[in-house]
Amino acid sequence: MLDLTPRLDRARRVVERATAAGLMIATAESCTGGLVAALLTSIPGSSAVVDRGFVTYTNEAKTEMLGVPRDLLARVGAVSAEVALAMAEGAIAHSRADLAVSITGIAGPGGGSAAKPVGLVHFAAVRRAGPSLAHEARFGDLGRDAIRLAAAETALDLLERLLDAG
Amino acid sequence: MLDLTPRLDRARRVVERATAAGLMIATAESCTGGLVAALLTSIPGSSAVVDRGFVTYTNEAKTEMLGVPRDLLARVGAVSAEVALAMAEGAIAHSRADLAVSITGIAGPGGGSAAKPVGLVHFAAVRRAGPSLAHEARFGDLGRDAIRLAAAETALDLLERLLDAG
Repeated sequence: MLDLTPRLDRARRVVERATAAGLMIATAESCTGGLVAALLTSIPGSSAVVDRGFVTYTNEAKTEMLGVPRDLLARVGAVSAEVALAMAEGAIAHSRADLAVSITGIAGPGGGSAAKPVGLVHFAAVRRAGPSLAHEARFGDLGRDAIRLAAAETALDLLERLLDAG
Repeated sequence: MLDLTPRLDRARRVVERATAAGLMIATAESCTGGLVAALLTSIPGSSAVVDRGFVTYTNEAKTEMLGVPRDLLARVGAVSAEVALAMAEGAIAHSRADLAVSITGIAGPGGGSAAKPVGLVHFAAVRRAGPSLAHEARFGDLGRDAIRLAAAETALDLLERLLDAG
């Protein structure tokens, strides 16, 4: 089940508030693979606030599209608070957006470990020349679709918190 | 309604066939805004075949992320066969993928004209150093969600046709 409908209200709130504030948004997605951008762009009028989205599924994409340092990826791994922050900062640096949100996690079913279990997701939300937020979620092994949807929801919530902070 | 579930079988076929062929995929999405990347990455094991996705919602993003010439956008408009091809070729040039698909269209409710009505979507699918496909769809004014879902489906079909051709 990959039904985005229950998440549209959240996306609408973010688009409406960013529109009112005159702010553009960029997304930097790994495990959600485009879900956050797809949710935001489902809202009519979102072209006024969605600048662009980076779906950086491979480590090479994270480095080449967002400038995430290769040695950082090697040292702490793609699923880490440090890489989430570098992704969001990279999305700001490589776009015209005012706000960026990043998502990197382990959606499963494979790829988990004791230290980084399936369901672990790191997020960052950054405002250009402004505050940033970091968030770590451990959704548990809910299944791939449920983890990705929960992560997309959390990313929208972080954008809203960043809009509150502004 | 933005339920991706009925499209997952198509995405699974593309991921399985690309995996079997050892080919990586990149997406270049405008009106679908990340839906095609989100569908492909919903399939377990897709990290073996999804290299990256470009959500190029603004004209600036199309130029800066994919190298679509600014004068081409000014001359023929973002929703055109020429820009669709430039987006797919740009996705190949700016990624490590073997296959790329692009989507650019008018999802509505606004933005339509007599020449380019709501529901018009241009697609291109390109194989690195190989064949390319172009496709134009006129879905009609089905509503924003239905147009975007139909466009995402068509993009997956084009990837499958390109895999057939290989």
